[in-house]
Amino acid sequence: MTGEKAAPKCRKVMSAAIPTQSETLTLQAALPLDCGRSLDGVQVAYESYGKLNEARDNAILIAHALTGDQYVASPHPITGKPGWWVRMVGPGLPIDTDRYFVICANVLGSCMGSTGPASLDTDGNPYAMRFPVITIRDMVRAQVALLDSLGIKRLHAVVGGSMGGMQALSLAANFPERTAAALIIASTARHSAQNIAFHEVGRQAIMADPVWRGGDYYAHGKGPEKGLSVARMAAHITYLSEAGLTDKFGRNLQDRSEKTFGFDADFQVESYLRHQGIAFTDRFDANSYLYITRAMDYFDLAEEHGGMLANAFAKSDARFCLVSFDTDWLYPTAESRHIAHALNAAGKPVSFMELSAPFGHDSFLLDVPALDRVIEGFLKQ
Amino acid sequence: MTGEKAAPKCRKVMSAAIPTQSETLTLQAALPLDCGRSLDGVQVAYESYGKLNEARDNAILIAHALTGDQYVASPHPITGKPGWWVRMVGPGLPIDTDRYFVICANVLGSCMGSTGPASLDTDGNPYAMRFPVITIRDMVRAQVALLDSLGIKRLHAVVGGSMGGMQALSLAANFPERTAAALIIASTARHSAQNIAFHEVGRQAIMADPVWRGGDYYAHGKGPEKGLSVARMAAHITYLSEAGLTDKFGRNLQDRSEKTFGFDADFQVESYLRHQGIAFTDRFDANSYLYITRAMDYFDLAEEHGGMLANAFAKSDARFCLVSFDTDWLYPTAESRHIAHALNAAGKPVSFMELSAPFGHDSFLLDVPALDRVIEGFLKQ
Repeated sequence: MTGEKAAPKCRKVMSAAIPTQSETLTLQAALPLDCGRSLDGVQVAYESYGKLNEARDNAILIAHALTGDQYVASPHPITGKPGWWVRMVGPGLPIDTDRYFVICANVLGSCMGSTGPASLDTDGNPYAMRFPVITIRDMVRAQVALLDSLGIKRLHAVVGGSMGGMQALSLAANFPERTAAALIIASTARHSAQNIAFHEVGRQAIMADPVWRGGDYYAHGKGPEKGLSVARMAAHITYLSEAGLTDKFGRNLQDRSEKTFGFDADFQVESYLRHQGIAFTDRFDANSYLYITRAMDYFDLAEEHGGMLANAFAKSDARFCLVSFDTDWLYPTAESRHIAHALNAAGKPVSFMELSAPFGHDSFLLDVPALDRVIEGFLKQ
Repeated sequence: MTGEKAAPKCRKVMSAAIPTQSETLTLQAALPLDCGRSLDGVQVAYESYGKLNEARDNAILIAHALTGDQYVASPHPITGKPGWWVRMVGPGLPIDTDRYFVICANVLGSCMGSTGPASLDTDGNPYAMRFPVITIRDMVRAQVALLDSLGIKRLHAVVGGSMGGMQALSLAANFPERTAAALIIASTARHSAQNIAFHEVGRQAIMADPVWRGGDYYAHGKGPEKGLSVARMAAHITYLSEAGLTDKFGRNLQDRSEKTFGFDADFQVESYLRHQGIAFTDRFDANSYLYITRAMDYFDLAEEHGGMLANAFAKSDARFCLVSFDTDWLYPTAESRHIAHALNAAGKPVSFMELSAPFGHDSFLLDVPALDRVIEGFLKQ
């Protein structure tokens, strides 16, 4: 492996530097980007689990979601919480680390060790808004460079939920020789007008915060926490189902028996959302949020391939599996069906199923035993 | 009529004072509020159309929505735009001003002439956050006081969409002798956890804006426009359907043929939302937005009546009509059905229908000819 252990250079500089346990690869070649620019010295921070076999054909790449990171099955270095998919990745689990070599890399543009807007440009200052606008395909280019460095020519599978599913689709479409299977969960081949609208609210909330300072907040010790918190709150609503919110919170009051006739968090759902917003600012860089949401909004796999989604898969010989959740209104089942139809039109092997789960979009991260079985079964084929 | 023509005292003081054409009633008695406090000298600004007949039994009260106002069929004094329901209210229209005496009053807590947080307290300064937290029932109390002043004992009907529907429900439940009919459109008898969550995002966006200054921005010439704009953007998404947004905007670019790889409004939907946000700040007071969203979140008509919605209607002898729209995900059909079931359980006459319209929650304001026919027919019965 050519990955070298290095201190992360692009951590959120206004928070106390916390050493990452992640391996970090520094790309030797400039990374070309869809915008026409390229980036020198890109770093890719990643975690790996299990062992690459001699044939180097047992690797599974897991692609993370918007605010996810490489700590798929390792404790998060800032929050101390267990990895975000410990229920799925480990010895004897559906993504079995006794069997597979599992890799998860922090995406380009993020803030957990891979190069992003908080990283230092050649002048020694953070890129901030000088960072180029990146795309999902650019993220995948960085991941493919990582596979090269690890000597992995072809993955056993690429797996991702939400934005991770977009990367899985993009890898299968744009680097068709690099994977034998693609598992896309709760995702979409394009961002809808409503998806873009919610992201735009979040971006405007961040940019409206005077502490954002046009993105140049790193030297000031504090980021646009209020704006980022509002952005997270708005997004968080879209990750949950209406029924799930009602079941979990309903109109229950928070630590009180009567409404206070004030603007405190009288309702549990208010208290919960405020907490989600504030906690997020401890672990995420606001500029990364701007850049990654932009990459998602720009994502339209058909557009990249002459306007026909089926064309995107023309060169792929991968097996595909698509999973949606019946309560996911962010990327509803119709979006997965749309991909399945395109794969059918392209004559590619695809299985597609909608699972029933009460948690909305977040179902892919939560306790849905049917998902475990689908993943385990698909990977073993 | 005891309503006296008066300059509005509670207009948004940081905008140029624009004389209202509305009649303004100043209540002689203190208005009791659900919070336990009462308000002296409450003003109620209202518009009226048509003529009250000798029997004084042809009056229809229209209750407006969150960001609506009394200019139901008159040009808006700030924007110059036609009234918000000119398609419904006028001579020969479904709410026929040749036949009915139509009243629409700015709600308590708002900013178009009725008393709200921007109004002056007895010390000569705006209430700001000293304004009491009000409820939907408090708004209705002010409207009933207006009816008293106009000598109207019993309405022919009370009509409202969205928050207007909440007022119509509250009036029929809490002042059952005051109306012979209630027409509730795209509304609900209680705010759900998701409804509260979206409002909380908006409130946090306003309060995060440093220009908000704890509500005391009136003397500084400028309100928290950025925060209010973000709040409006988030709310606006909930007023439209996903399919409607896709039909109207899809992924169309705004005045450009290529994505710019930047953070300008590349997509039409971004440009549209930003415009909605900014335009709103010209005509609405941020503190009013806080207070009125709070009143809506507090609304739970069953809770006011021992936890049983059917009990709320026990004393009513009004006819009810409930209308929902199939694409409304803010107050979906299930909410109207819930009210219909309660009315059935209480043995009250109710008709309930779901109309098909592509515009989401905003359908009640837009071109849905089936709604015209329902309203006209129900009022004529």
